[in-house]
Amino acid sequence: MAPAAIDLRSAIAQVGSEIDALFEELLPVAEDQRAPLYEAMRYASIGGGKRLRPLLVAAASQLFAIPRDSALRAGLAVECIHVYSLIHDDLPCMDDDDLRRGKPTTHKAFDECTAVLAGDCLHDLAFQVLADSRIHADPAVRIELVAELARASGPAGMAGGQMMDLMAAQADMDLGTVTRLQQLKTGALIAFCLEAAAIMARLPADERTSLRGYAHDLGLAFQIADDLLDVEGDEAVTGKKVGKDDAAGKETFVSLLGVDRARRQAQLLVDQAVDHLKTYGPEADLLRAIARFAVERDH
Amino acid sequence: MAPAAIDLRSAIAQVGSEIDALFEELLPVAEDQRAPLYEAMRYASIGGGKRLRPLLVAAASQLFAIPRDSALRAGLAVECIHVYSLIHDDLPCMDDDDLRRGKPTTHKAFDECTAVLAGDCLHDLAFQVLADSRIHADPAVRIELVAELARASGPAGMAGGQMMDLMAAQADMDLGTVTRLQQLKTGALIAFCLEAAAIMARLPADERTSLRGYAHDLGLAFQIADDLLDVEGDEAVTGKKVGKDDAAGKETFVSLLGVDRARRQAQLLVDQAVDHLKTYGPEADLLRAIARFAVERDH
Repeated sequence: MAPAAIDLRSAIAQVGSEIDALFEELLPVAEDQRAPLYEAMRYASIGGGKRLRPLLVAAASQLFAIPRDSALRAGLAVECIHVYSLIHDDLPCMDDDDLRRGKPTTHKAFDECTAVLAGDCLHDLAFQVLADSRIHADPAVRIELVAELARASGPAGMAGGQMMDLMAAQADMDLGTVTRLQQLKTGALIAFCLEAAAIMARLPADERTSLRGYAHDLGLAFQIADDLLDVEGDEAVTGKKVGKDDAAGKETFVSLLGVDRARRQAQLLVDQAVDHLKTYGPEADLLRAIARFAVERDH
Repeated sequence: MAPAAIDLRSAIAQVGSEIDALFEELLPVAEDQRAPLYEAMRYASIGGGKRLRPLLVAAASQLFAIPRDSALRAGLAVECIHVYSLIHDDLPCMDDDDLRRGKPTTHKAFDECTAVLAGDCLHDLAFQVLADSRIHADPAVRIELVAELARASGPAGMAGGQMMDLMAAQADMDLGTVTRLQQLKTGALIAFCLEAAAIMARLPADERTSLRGYAHDLGLAFQIADDLLDVEGDEAVTGKKVGKDDAAGKETFVSLLGVDRARRQAQLLVDQAVDHLKTYGPEADLLRAIARFAVERDH
């Protein structure tokens, strides 16, 4: 287990610096009155986060020998969606957060209107990246990526889950509803990461089942771990406020299952996720390590 | 002039009902906790506005005998972007408007967080529509539409212009800067409408010059007319608050040129726009009528 853990750490660092380099390339510092907009986009996107989603695309791309640059660009696109959603979620009218990744949220560092626009522009950037021929020479592959990401981020995916989350404080939710909420809110983008590799590899639909199973189980495990961190985490380590769900009166996996059962459930999901990869050899070791990391991390 | 005016009125009504029908098809009423999100998307997008952008795509598509359904779907995509931008622009942290198209703005009819998410979801819907094979069988055409729309709506287009507009109240802007601002804020999406027809017709780049000239002049004429309506318009007819620019201390074409020169400039631009179409015959009559309507309208 020890070598895999070391590999994961360097893989995370590697993807992090490659994604930062791509953001630098795509987000110039503007000289005109749009400067604050570009600065806010850069502030929110460069140098932050675990880059879990790009890492997942890169790890899944290893299964099919997809060129590194293609994998990174698909990872960049999904990261653009993730970052835009964080900017909007942090707004006063949404979760009203002051702290994100250990620094002031975008609307605190700039202002609300710049934050709204910076989120909107990162949303556009995601599709611009997918439309670029550098991601894949075949436009049919690129358009499939666009269709998949638009679905995963919209009302049938991430944004739909966010809407359910906003309603969560007002309604009693059972485990099935919370599961559905999280499959949309965080699961849809995680599923995109694996699907993106399958699309770029032109994998037939019936050969995508195991990757979809992995994504499903990993997404839920990751969310349960997040709920546990919200209860047990250290603000200085997680880089965001803890105890938020409880304060907001939201049902979570932890509030419904209790800490012990939630932790066991997350571990079970991780084991299942790894099991989905059994037809793959060492080329899937990074995906296996990511699954284990999902529940072992402290941030 | 009289017959053309009648044609335009029926063309506007026709496109309006066709776009509404497509929104109805794409935006079901959800039965779960995402219902308010879908309701807000429907509230903002169905039955409102002049549908100028879809009308422009449809009119330009007549030049190249592009199938009606393709033209409408490209028009729907750009209308999704337009509507999402109106929802976000109306937010309290942006222009803080209570009234739009004669009814309460989305965040007034629902709440701010639902409005933010509804805008985000219409943003996704635009790209979902362009990725759908029903718009065009060739993925290369679809991906070119995606690339063009992502550019036109992002920091190098509409959102960049919106950022400049937000800065406008704090800075002295000259005519060149206001022109640049408006070319981005409203011109980029209008330019997309003409470009979309050219893309779907696979028109070589060097044959797109006249359509781009038309779009450029129409976009500015349309904006000057908007500025004039903000000064001289009737709130009951325009369906939105008037006198906003002056109250916000913003420079506009009217504040910089005065009413008379602004009106003459708009007319000159319309004449130029029509002149760009001189190589086309009666198939361009609808585009000509739209250009004249830009400065003659009262809303």
